[in-house]
Amino acid sequence: MKEYILKISCSDEKGLIYRISDVIFKYRINIVKNDEFVGEERFFFRAHLEGELDLQAFKGTLEAVLPNDALIEICEKRKKDIIVFATKETHCLGELLIRHFSNEFNANIKAVIANYDILKPLVDKFSIPFHTIEAQNLTRENHEEKILECLSQYEFDYIVLAKYMRILSPSFVQHFEGKIINIHHSFLPAFIGANPYKQAYERGVKIIGATAHFVNNDLDEGPIITQDVIPVTHEYSWQMMQQAGRNVEKNVLSKALDLVFDDRIFIYNNKTIVF
Amino acid sequence: MKEYILKISCSDEKGLIYRISDVIFKYRINIVKNDEFVGEERFFFRAHLEGELDLQAFKGTLEAVLPNDALIEICEKRKKDIIVFATKETHCLGELLIRHFSNEFNANIKAVIANYDILKPLVDKFSIPFHTIEAQNLTRENHEEKILECLSQYEFDYIVLAKYMRILSPSFVQHFEGKIINIHHSFLPAFIGANPYKQAYERGVKIIGATAHFVNNDLDEGPIITQDVIPVTHEYSWQMMQQAGRNVEKNVLSKALDLVFDDRIFIYNNKTIVF
Amino acid sequence: MKEYILKISCSDEKGLIYRISDVIFKYRINIVKNDEFVGEERFFFRAHLEGELDLQAFKGTLEAVLPNDALIEICEKRKKDIIVFATKETHCLGELLIRHFSNEFNANIKAVIANYDILKPLVDKFSIPFHTIEAQNLTRENHEEKILECLSQYEFDYIVLAKYMRILSPSFVQHFEGKIINIHHSFLPAFIGANPYKQAYERGVKIIGATAHFVNNDLDEGPIITQDVIPVTHEYSWQMMQQAGRNVEKNVLSKALDLVFDDRIFIYNNKTIVF
Amino acid sequence: MKEYILKISCSDEKGLIYRISDVIFKYRINIVKNDEFVGEERFFFRAHLEGELDLQAFKGTLEAVLPNDALIEICEKRKKDIIVFATKETHCLGELLIRHFSNEFNANIKAVIANYDILKPLVDKFSIPFHTIEAQNLTRENHEEKILECLSQYEFDYIVLAKYMRILSPSFVQHFEGKIINIHHSFLPAFIGANPYKQAYERGVKIIGATAHFVNNDLDEGPIITQDVIPVTHEYSWQMMQQAGRNVEKNVLSKALDLVFDDRIFIYNNKTIVF
Repeated sequence: MKEYILKISCSDEKGLIYRISDVIFKYRINIVKNDEFVGEERFFFRAHLEGELDLQAFKGTLEAVLPNDALIEICEKRKKDIIVFATKETHCLGELLIRHFSNEFNANIKAVIANYDILKPLVDKFSIPFHTIEAQNLTRENHEEKILECLSQYEFDYIVLAKYMRILSPSFVQHFEGKIINIHHSFLPAFIGANPYKQAYERGVKIIGATAHFVNNDLDEGPIITQDVIPVTHEYSWQMMQQAGRNVEKNVLSKALDLVFDDRIFIYNNKTIVF
Repeated sequence: MKEYILKISCSDEKGLIYRISDVIFKYRINIVKNDEFVGEERFFFRAHLEGELDLQAFKGTLEAVLPNDALIEICEKRKKDIIVFATKETHCLGELLIRHFSNEFNANIKAVIANYDILKPLVDKFSIPFHTIEAQNLTRENHEEKILECLSQYEFDYIVLAKYMRILSPSFVQHFEGKIINIHHSFLPAFIGANPYKQAYERGVKIIGATAHFVNNDLDEGPIITQDVIPVTHEYSWQMMQQAGRNVEKNVLSKALDLVFDDRIFIYNNKTIVF
Repeated sequence: MKEYILKISCSDEKGLIYRISDVIFKYRINIVKNDEFVGEERFFFRAHLEGELDLQAFKGTLEAVLPNDALIEICEKRKKDIIVFATKETHCLGELLIRHFSNEFNANIKAVIANYDILKPLVDKFSIPFHTIEAQNLTRENHEEKILECLSQYEFDYIVLAKYMRILSPSFVQHFEGKIINIHHSFLPAFIGANPYKQAYERGVKIIGATAHFVNNDLDEGPIITQDVIPVTHEYSWQMMQQAGRNVEKNVLSKALDLVFDDRIFIYNNKTIVF
Repeated sequence: MKEYILKISCSDEKGLIYRISDVIFKYRINIVKNDEFVGEERFFFRAHLEGELDLQAFKGTLEAVLPNDALIEICEKRKKDIIVFATKETHCLGELLIRHFSNEFNANIKAVIANYDILKPLVDKFSIPFHTIEAQNLTRENHEEKILECLSQYEFDYIVLAKYMRILSPSFVQHFEGKIINIHHSFLPAFIGANPYKQAYERGVKIIGATAHFVNNDLDEGPIITQDVIPVTHEYSWQMMQQAGRNVEKNVLSKALDLVFDDRIFIYNNKTIVF
């Protein structure tokens, strides 16, 4: 038996669940788990299905019974392929490498791209291609062109920014809309921009955090996937906050990726629905 | 338009959601929100409905399409009526009284019963009947007889043990099966029995907690509804743990009651499904 | 035996603990607990002492051995007297009233002042003076004059803003510098200003929080005492966030007040040191 | 300038801080940070010092002014050397390897010993010796003899059990008293023994956790260093709890090791004081 993930979003109206479950029932497949949500007059539905499906026919039948604006995705459950972008820091990348190695990760890391070569020795250990694409003396456009060229040799589902410390251009972001996940080292929307830990120290906060989000054109403004926090005290310098924050960062990124790679997320109105 | 809560549990089989949503659709009522879960081969379903229903007819139609072992509850949304049992401590009872007063509580406190009269001045402020039923010099049976007699004058949905420090007899518990909610001052199943904070101190734990659960015949073994914890350090004596724990206790009880009074909970195999 | 709290802050230099403990030793009093911290080149010290002290002589001896810029506070442990400001919401005020009643609160509520009379019935239950000082048709200055006049009949240590929904003028704030504690219904510095829950909903955050802080001239920018958070999901409307947030608000305020009333806090450079 | 950690514990009496700070002052060294605690009539003191010390003379001077039962440890700050024991699971070991590699870990992993060879490929990547010492067909004594023989070639400060799934004999434990740190996959003292996640599932708990503790003769009863928890719901099978728990396990172990390797912990009466 195969496993499928069905994702539907459409404008809300009466009888949607009835119509969807009617189709599922007629195709004689099992619902392992399903979730629905209605918000801002839109209906969101995700089902984990089990059985044997003619995907095109199934999708067609669903389209016939759902509103015209319905977005329907149905695909077999599978590991995602990802490219990881990094800069110099070990913690997030290391977490992904260990999970990749352990086989407890719903993704394959196809390659790592970094603007420095510092992390090469670490990535090499895991026999994953590492591409150093330096940014110095290049315009943002030229740098991204080189990245795009490098990316062109890979098939992948998502780009994961594992503490990639450069800002991506709007055109790059648009090219991979909804496909780039970033970990921001603050509890957004607090401390947008550079040096959030320093900002947090200056403000004297008693809790710091991290935010995993999809990247969009507005820096640090993309749809939030997961957030978490840890307590800090007056004894923390900003460097100690940074150190303590690393653990939250990698946990939050790791958790967000589990949700994304499991097809549990809808993006709507710059917010996420997370099933 | 009226609001209803529908709760169904039955043995799992294919097409249950289809059949239920078919009935709901035919009765032309709205699903505001619905949740399903399948666990241990049993199907659980809760829906918040909006519309105008002939409850008996609706229930009959559902019964006709569901397995024989289906348990179906359908009722209009309404505030629950409760009796609170207490002993000497203010914090949990006080929380319920303030919420009762503020009208942000999905329940009416019909009366408070206590084995001491210490809390009478507090309850009197809120013009809620307070019954002191002392336990001294009485057998458990005699004491509970007096309580039952007192209870007989009230109509109520639930009994809430707000730090009621006496053990209820199996026959009393059976009489109100699934209707008594307790707050236990530890993170069950750790520190069952007397003086959990003292036990916690002796064991040198770094986190303490509280557990809200339905009461069954086995002391501290009933189905868990909610739990929460707070960190403690070596600086905490057991009295300081007790003091700090009070806050968790009242929060956990309060949250559990919100879930219970909103008809969000199924009890099955001594565990709870919480929608 | 009496109990004292000693608080010292001064510019940091070698031997401060030695000098202080020397004085304490010579006055033959016990240190129950002491804490020190050095940050931004300033030294902070708090000790809980036990014994019999001539406060003036003791302070003089300390002054003689400490740097010229030393701020020394020594006083007997005692309950603080407070005035609570409120508007319409029950939860924070209710928490304080119950704690006041239960005697587990290190403060006496001398009076409640509100710009509406909605909460009068609640406060009356506890036989605490309630002053309605309406703000309608008054300038901020005139309104605050009336408040000051009302306050002039009380001796008090702190003003607690228990969801007081008006902004205090700089001159009012300066008048009670370091003496006004506010609970802000967001995880500062996120969502400064009006309607933080609505802002949080719009931004699609996955965690909401509350912040207790001292009030200074810059709105929502005062020194933070305590913060806490709770998780939210896409299922939360901003009203549900508000509802859920109330619990965090009252817990955070309550915890902050425990720290303040126990003389555990130093304010320095718009940050707090919390022992 | 050198950095030192001074740890003192002795029976409590008046003037201890005065006497200690007097000595520190006379040796003309800086206190970067110090902590004290008095509990169960015993005094605990830790200071982070900066300067140039004759360790033996300094210790002698302290001994002369402190009670006879004083335990005094003074040593230069340094990275600890550790041996990691593992079995089959990647997550805890992987975390330690990445931190070892990143240089953000206050310890060097000298070797990994495992009762299976499954983790050898991972450890080999980091060029750390890996010793497979199989337990099959061996008595516990014989197996531990082999381990001791293997250990004899290394100098080390601590043994870290990173999900080592075998019970150590009392004699082995005694040999390394206070030197073995274990991560237990439950929120101790709940779910002592085998399969804690299965036990947690059966009990229907709403929170699961992990506990890092020193190992003593009583299984799962050693002094607790750190604990943390995560929420679970009825949707979690015990396998999902296990999966989710892995993250807490590695975080809790990692945090506990930071504290231990920083000499922040005292063990007393089977509890820990954590500065």
